[in-house]
Amino acid sequence: MTAFKPRNPNFAARVRDSFGRQPMMAHIGAELVTIEPGYCEIHLPYRRELTQQHGYIHGGVLATIIDSAAGYAAFSLMPAESSILTVEYKLNILRPGEGERMIARGRVLKSGRSLSVVNADAYAVKGGVETLCVTSIHTLMALHGKADDAPVR
Amino acid sequence: MTAFKPRNPNFAARVRDSFGRQPMMAHIGAELVTIEPGYCEIHLPYRRELTQQHGYIHGGVLATIIDSAAGYAAFSLMPAESSILTVEYKLNILRPGEGERMIARGRVLKSGRSLSVVNADAYAVKGGVETLCVTSIHTLMALHGKADDAPVR
Amino acid sequence: MTAFKPRNPNFAARVRDSFGRQPMMAHIGAELVTIEPGYCEIHLPYRRELTQQHGYIHGGVLATIIDSAAGYAAFSLMPAESSILTVEYKLNILRPGEGERMIARGRVLKSGRSLSVVNADAYAVKGGVETLCVTSIHTLMALHGKADDAPVR
Amino acid sequence: MTAFKPRNPNFAARVRDSFGRQPMMAHIGAELVTIEPGYCEIHLPYRRELTQQHGYIHGGVLATIIDSAAGYAAFSLMPAESSILTVEYKLNILRPGEGERMIARGRVLKSGRSLSVVNADAYAVKGGVETLCVTSIHTLMALHGKADDAPVR
Repeated sequence: MTAFKPRNPNFAARVRDSFGRQPMMAHIGAELVTIEPGYCEIHLPYRRELTQQHGYIHGGVLATIIDSAAGYAAFSLMPAESSILTVEYKLNILRPGEGERMIARGRVLKSGRSLSVVNADAYAVKGGVETLCVTSIHTLMALHGKADDAPVR
Repeated sequence: MTAFKPRNPNFAARVRDSFGRQPMMAHIGAELVTIEPGYCEIHLPYRRELTQQHGYIHGGVLATIIDSAAGYAAFSLMPAESSILTVEYKLNILRPGEGERMIARGRVLKSGRSLSVVNADAYAVKGGVETLCVTSIHTLMALHGKADDAPVR
Repeated sequence: MTAFKPRNPNFAARVRDSFGRQPMMAHIGAELVTIEPGYCEIHLPYRRELTQQHGYIHGGVLATIIDSAAGYAAFSLMPAESSILTVEYKLNILRPGEGERMIARGRVLKSGRSLSVVNADAYAVKGGVETLCVTSIHTLMALHGKADDAPVR
Repeated sequence: MTAFKPRNPNFAARVRDSFGRQPMMAHIGAELVTIEPGYCEIHLPYRRELTQQHGYIHGGVLATIIDSAAGYAAFSLMPAESSILTVEYKLNILRPGEGERMIARGRVLKSGRSLSVVNADAYAVKGGVETLCVTSIHTLMALHGKADDAPVR
């Protein structure tokens, strides 16, 4: 895997600040655990209100944390006055999300001027053992000249 | 579009029952509005806690309602003693989810014995006008001999 | 479906010219049949050398014609001095490609300044009857200031 | 990465035999180079007739070799009386396919009874240096009781 150099030395603080401004992350109880250049890890402790009809974590919740992990992995490599937008992604659910904690890890495969491509995986932690549940590929687009914390309108 | 014949005359009640057993649907405030053979429509009124950092509905929330709309569209065509599992999906976000309400619509393209393929779209309703926000393709697998409301273990 | 207005009145000639410069289209015997603003249709007569081990048209051949149909549907809406690049796509194979002819149809869902999103489907024609074989979603990126027929280097 | 145990000791011969029965592989000049349990590598020397309008290897050709590499990676783990079918895949084109040779590598992520999930990447080799061009995720379905070389009809 290539080592990426951040274009903004302040990238970690910026990612944490952006994460903190996402009400949905608080609504599901997601925690930003690790942010490195081109890499992001998000944890989600089990909560009954996040489950589907069989007691597993809802696939949409796994999508939410891998989407955020992929987005912040890409965002960590953006210049200061840029933000990032999810264009599309595809995910495979390999196993149900079952356990005391879910972990999403995003890893940048390519960080271009306009587009970034990111692999993100989600793991279920049960009895301390990690199992791969979701694998995914994401495409994101840089919005240059529009900082992430700019007023929307 | 082909007209599908349900294999279980009771399909609508069964879908509504399954939807009601998903804590995540209540947690985000999603409503099952329409269920027909091979078709499902889910509505989601705007709530601030479902947004991302720019005030739009979080992409993961849109994924959650299209995942459910796709799943129940496929499930509506299953025989009585079967349930359904999401294998994978891919979505494109065409525009941000902005407005007073989001609508997800799932439409079955193919309902095979093992696999179903479903198109699902999400729309934002703003000032009463619908705009396409997300388009997606889903693959789901039937679990025969395992009813949706069977005890998990 | 929205009606698209071409930004280049000459779009049809330009698409036909570009198609003619693709050796791979000749190598498999693909024909550009229809080009309209935001829409492209490509036909492929059956040839034994395009099949896989069970005698069906190889999935990669179907991918090749839907990729081209999607690309030219998007390209038809580009300004004169721009070309287009496939970013990614996802396809579902619903049925094997079996018959005397395959048809790929690309339809633009969104034509943005940078990105286009296109749905493309492939049909098998057997005994004159069309059957849907492949459905797909494609993302493409515009390269502005770089005409499609510019020398590559 | 998990080590996979083949369910058919004869898997390598069976894969090579199946590859040899694909006319499309010969039509583009693809070579099966490596087959191991859960892993397959296919090489494709550059040929002008496989290019698109800018002289790069056509995206559909890259799709063809990753589709085959993914399929045979999954097939290598199947029992003797089973064959395999591509359900769907999604690919991202990171860079154009340019060079003297393309290499596709398929690696099984999960080999279930019904479904297999495979990651496949394609590389361009230029001046002996490999560059990642395409990354992809594939879903395949086992057809039990139907050997790969059974007469189709």
